[in-house]
Amino acid sequence: MNVQWDQQIRARARQARSASRLLAASPAGGRNQALGRTAELLLERAGAVLQANAEDCARAADLSPAAASRLKLDPVKLGEMARGLTAVAALADPLGRVRLHRLLDDDLELTQVTCPLGVLGVVFEARPDALVQIGSLAIKSGNAALLKGGREAARTNELLAEILRQGLAGAGLPEDAIQLLGGREDVEALLAMDDLVDLLIPRGSSALVRHIQAHTRIPVLGHAEGICHIYLDARADPAKAVAVVRDAKLQYPAACNAVETLLVHRDADGVLALVAEDLRAGGVELRGCPRACGLLPWMLPATEADWDTEYGEPILSVRIVDSLDQAIAHIHAHGSGHTEAILTEDPEAAERFLAEVDAAGVYHNASTRFADGYRYGFGAEVGISTSRIHARGPVGLDGLLSSKYLLRGAGHRVADYTGAEPRSFLHRDL
Amino acid sequence: MNVQWDQQIRARARQARSASRLLAASPAGGRNQALGRTAELLLERAGAVLQANAEDCARAADLSPAAASRLKLDPVKLGEMARGLTAVAALADPLGRVRLHRLLDDDLELTQVTCPLGVLGVVFEARPDALVQIGSLAIKSGNAALLKGGREAARTNELLAEILRQGLAGAGLPEDAIQLLGGREDVEALLAMDDLVDLLIPRGSSALVRHIQAHTRIPVLGHAEGICHIYLDARADPAKAVAVVRDAKLQYPAACNAVETLLVHRDADGVLALVAEDLRAGGVELRGCPRACGLLPWMLPATEADWDTEYGEPILSVRIVDSLDQAIAHIHAHGSGHTEAILTEDPEAAERFLAEVDAAGVYHNASTRFADGYRYGFGAEVGISTSRIHARGPVGLDGLLSSKYLLRGAGHRVADYTGAEPRSFLHRDL
Repeated sequence: MNVQWDQQIRARARQARSASRLLAASPAGGRNQALGRTAELLLERAGAVLQANAEDCARAADLSPAAASRLKLDPVKLGEMARGLTAVAALADPLGRVRLHRLLDDDLELTQVTCPLGVLGVVFEARPDALVQIGSLAIKSGNAALLKGGREAARTNELLAEILRQGLAGAGLPEDAIQLLGGREDVEALLAMDDLVDLLIPRGSSALVRHIQAHTRIPVLGHAEGICHIYLDARADPAKAVAVVRDAKLQYPAACNAVETLLVHRDADGVLALVAEDLRAGGVELRGCPRACGLLPWMLPATEADWDTEYGEPILSVRIVDSLDQAIAHIHAHGSGHTEAILTEDPEAAERFLAEVDAAGVYHNASTRFADGYRYGFGAEVGISTSRIHARGPVGLDGLLSSKYLLRGAGHRVADYTGAEPRSFLHRDL
Repeated sequence: MNVQWDQQIRARARQARSASRLLAASPAGGRNQALGRTAELLLERAGAVLQANAEDCARAADLSPAAASRLKLDPVKLGEMARGLTAVAALADPLGRVRLHRLLDDDLELTQVTCPLGVLGVVFEARPDALVQIGSLAIKSGNAALLKGGREAARTNELLAEILRQGLAGAGLPEDAIQLLGGREDVEALLAMDDLVDLLIPRGSSALVRHIQAHTRIPVLGHAEGICHIYLDARADPAKAVAVVRDAKLQYPAACNAVETLLVHRDADGVLALVAEDLRAGGVELRGCPRACGLLPWMLPATEADWDTEYGEPILSVRIVDSLDQAIAHIHAHGSGHTEAILTEDPEAAERFLAEVDAAGVYHNASTRFADGYRYGFGAEVGISTSRIHARGPVGLDGLLSSKYLLRGAGHRVADYTGAEPRSFLHRDL
């Protein structure tokens, strides 16, 4: 990489760090005012944004229909984006929350308070609404964000980032908290700045997430895969099973929390028949293990690869197992640690499944599709993490926070707590 | 690297993962019993442990005196190790704690509970007590640990790891939760297993931490440097200043939380004179900026490199600043984000410092040496992290935890919450 270019990007990351420190110490009112001003600017400058977006769309004729629809803005989407900004402004202030408050000794008081992570690196595909959404969550939580959007959306992104910066400036906050990166070289530089960037947030395809995970030492918030299972226990309720499996597969098959494999206890063959017929009627292709195909010969035979595949389509693999243990073993061997569900009326089996399955979400008698920050009541969703570090599962604003310990004393020395006649700590939570 | 060897290490990491899943679902009583049994075994087999340690010491004649003393075990140290195990057993169970409990809708209940991270990789220098300590914290928190100790302690470590495994087996728990790795090739393999190891914990020198951080994509819990500052404000109390700075510099100069640079407001020259004379009398070498040397000509002149140096010795750099802002700017430019303190009787200056300084610990009128898991009342310390991700500052057992979301429903479907007449979520915290 061009060394001068690299230095320039690093300088911008340092400016972002300084801006974040100012945001961190700013009152919530200022950050919320910036979000409100951004919403106003978005509507005031709607014509220019739609014009820039139309130019982007005209040049991106070779996008898939789905990608083109994500790229294209219209007045309705702009209105939603503005309402999204207002909604984020209305959320409670995530900064300065007390996580621990403890009297260590007389007049020696420890407080752990939330603070911003610092500098976020956000890489997304050609989806202008994602830029505004993640930018607003960054500002709300006092973080700076280096944003790199898909090149197809270059003109739209430039204008939207400018509007976010003007929103900040309008509230007397440092506009360098939001910075738009440019070409492919900028992404390379971003991924290399593990000393200056605290968290990477990829918003896009599994391929994008995997690429980023493989090319950086910076922690990545996200998930490359969502291979979710539902286990039909021997005591699954037929009506619930039909309803929940249909929801988990068909309500939105492209979602990461859609079910990909149905594990069925050998004694639940009757329930399987009902579930399978319902899915078949709903247009789902079923691929069964030999025993499943033996029960329902119209199923296609599954190959080994099916157990490790996230279809993202109306396809479901089906495997018969002999026991709860075998179901859990299959999940641990093939799952992605995203969301796993058991359907049963047997409370003991349910509690064992909840305790023993190692995943971000483990459900009893509920659709895997509930794995979502809004459905969990977080008010906002930054992403869904299958990592065990920092944040796991759907991640709200909390995922953009760190904390710091404040200690208020009166001239306290450690030497007094050591030696022959040491003072004792009180360690009393306040 | 030898591919077969690599596969063997990966197989062991997978066994560790399985063992961790069994530990995760085991009752606290079993894990505590394993720790108690390990303590007993340690004392029962004290002769063999001391014998193995004597052999290690005999072969490690070229170690520095400090390193040799860390390597060497004696009956007193063994007794402390056994008491440490019993103390960890007595701590409250960190697993299954409820972090969030929320009714999403009628009969749809979300609970976020703590669970183990999974597999820890621990790399330490020739310090056998560290093996037992971190091994016990791993077992307590339901984690498996791949342990790699310094080669000088090979025989001792082998026996200690065997005792931990026997302790697990004695409580009916999987002994594969503790595994000792061997040579340098094993470390290389460990650092490469970012798909199988959740967290790396280096216990040793800054050089070790830096080496590990630079050679892995696995999150690292720790800190390479502790460049801590004390800022003597214009309204610093002279007696407190003398006591606190002496404590922060001299109580244990090699500690990461010892102070390295004293920043002094230009109006605090009188306090500086007292502090400096006291330190000089205590054998501290002072290196001043030109203005500091102007005030106290006996100081050595500091070079630019001094502001970025962790001495770990009785040396202190001193810089005069014109304002609180300049002190904070110096800290952000040169600090390592570990622990920073202001000494002042001005509450406004104190609160500004606490709010604006970006570090794991920010103190008012207290010695930086308080940055420690035991002093914070955590009962155990896994390390001190200067990262903003996952855990920041002194880290107790909580740093070895992740969480998972349990959702208990009654056949709930997402489809009911979308569309023309969607149900609303309750989102009521329980």
